[in-house]
Amino acid sequence: DSAAAFYAPTVGVIGVGLVGGALALALKRAGCVGRVVGADRARDQLQLAVELGAIDEIADTPTAAVAAADVVVLATPVNAVAELLHAIAPAVDANKIITDVGSVKCGVCAAARAALGENIGRFVPGHPVAGKEHSGVAAAVAELFQNHATVLTPLPETDATALAAIRQMWRAVGAEVCEMEAELHDQVLAVTSHLPHILAYAMMDVFAQNEPELAHSRDMVAGGFYDFTRTVSSDAEMWRDICAMNAKQILARIDQFTARLARLRGLIDTNSHADLAKIFADAKSLRAQLAQRRPPRN
Amino acid sequence: DSAAAFYAPTVGVIGVGLVGGALALALKRAGCVGRVVGADRARDQLQLAVELGAIDEIADTPTAAVAAADVVVLATPVNAVAELLHAIAPAVDANKIITDVGSVKCGVCAAARAALGENIGRFVPGHPVAGKEHSGVAAAVAELFQNHATVLTPLPETDATALAAIRQMWRAVGAEVCEMEAELHDQVLAVTSHLPHILAYAMMDVFAQNEPELAHSRDMVAGGFYDFTRTVSSDAEMWRDICAMNAKQILARIDQFTARLARLRGLIDTNSHADLAKIFADAKSLRAQLAQRRPPRN
Repeated sequence: DSAAAFYAPTVGVIGVGLVGGALALALKRAGCVGRVVGADRARDQLQLAVELGAIDEIADTPTAAVAAADVVVLATPVNAVAELLHAIAPAVDANKIITDVGSVKCGVCAAARAALGENIGRFVPGHPVAGKEHSGVAAAVAELFQNHATVLTPLPETDATALAAIRQMWRAVGAEVCEMEAELHDQVLAVTSHLPHILAYAMMDVFAQNEPELAHSRDMVAGGFYDFTRTVSSDAEMWRDICAMNAKQILARIDQFTARLARLRGLIDTNSHADLAKIFADAKSLRAQLAQRRPPRN
Repeated sequence: DSAAAFYAPTVGVIGVGLVGGALALALKRAGCVGRVVGADRARDQLQLAVELGAIDEIADTPTAAVAAADVVVLATPVNAVAELLHAIAPAVDANKIITDVGSVKCGVCAAARAALGENIGRFVPGHPVAGKEHSGVAAAVAELFQNHATVLTPLPETDATALAAIRQMWRAVGAEVCEMEAELHDQVLAVTSHLPHILAYAMMDVFAQNEPELAHSRDMVAGGFYDFTRTVSSDAEMWRDICAMNAKQILARIDQFTARLARLRGLIDTNSHADLAKIFADAKSLRAQLAQRRPPRN
């Protein structure tokens, strides 16, 4: 398995934005694909994708892209995947592989099972944990996935050959591939990505509430604040959709956070020096461990 | 006033770490000082400060540094300033100016009033809003304050000449000087610095709590998480002390944050798409406005 290279005569990319565009560019650079057929609601993104060399041909509909392709990557916003799966289902057969890049996996897996019927084995749920603040194919670079994790969350029904092919596809573009159950994926992402985003939004909300008093103090904002809130520069609608799709996990992590914050509040209120110092030191130590694994930025 | 340059024959720096060392280096580079006398409990920091050219002479005690100096900068950890003010008070007279760099101001102002008696007018409370994750004089650079805000929080008793001199001192090292009441300063810092720090600590705490399940998922931590939690790399003891000194404001901001987070939680729970999208878009817009003012990083 690990020695096998990925090659597909035709890859279909539905949703030619940052991630779909970057994957198309990376597969072409790696010599893994004969041609890329792209489909997208936004004609300007498709035209730009052709100009940037990400895709070779434009398909008029998602179904046409599926019909033309051996491997299909669903790279639309994650909340559009369920409807898309239903739309393309008639064009899916046992010789095609369908995969996706959605950042929430339980909902996508359930939608795939509902839509694909007897061809469910050809669907390989995936999530490249890589991104940028900017979206759109114009921001796509072939190096986006290098040294970043791509998580696959295969279903019990997933064909071993389809899973192996998608694993090789991601390895070919430099990703470190791991596999886990969809539910664990959604918990991990809630902790490491979705909760920090929500907290940054709430932090900006507190800032806005204090604005009447702080209006002339904007120049005092320190560097740490910008780092803390950088994530709110992401696409607002994408985050609204992630909240909807991973609500159960996000609510559970908000509750956990609220409890931990209340504990810290109590320790500050009672001036519990030793306990606070320990929590702060533990946090610093854990982050230092994590930072050793941080992939290089693209 | 704005045309007057700052010059002091002898500046005393008590606490020769990152901020005290950087200010000494910057004042010397700007030709604003005849000599710098340093005092610090840590002899190795003092020796290093001499070797790095930050200070010219070592004073055996803080009081000796005050006795030798025209302008004295208190640059110890903020929780040590109260005791320090009491210790040096006998050496303060109407010809000296005392200032500090503490990141919490109400407590420092109260301590100064209690310690300095009839010389309270010679004390100019200050806070350069600049820093680094790393502490110690080895990390000190003369450019630390350039284009960053330095806030002065004069008391009603503060001498106009002392205030003007310290204003010029900070301008000479490139800082943008503003003035406000100590209580507003502490509120601004609670919102823009202390609260984000506390939230990052609580976030790491949630991560640690999920570790049993996530242990093999550490490689999935995304870039946003590192940015969000960068501040926890700061000195744990310094943050414990800031929590103690600005407890009233920090508790109020935690309560405000908890209420805003609870509101977001409710909107996620009820899948209130439009309200969430508006909050997220408002946060993105406000941060973009703030980021336009972000000073360049040193």
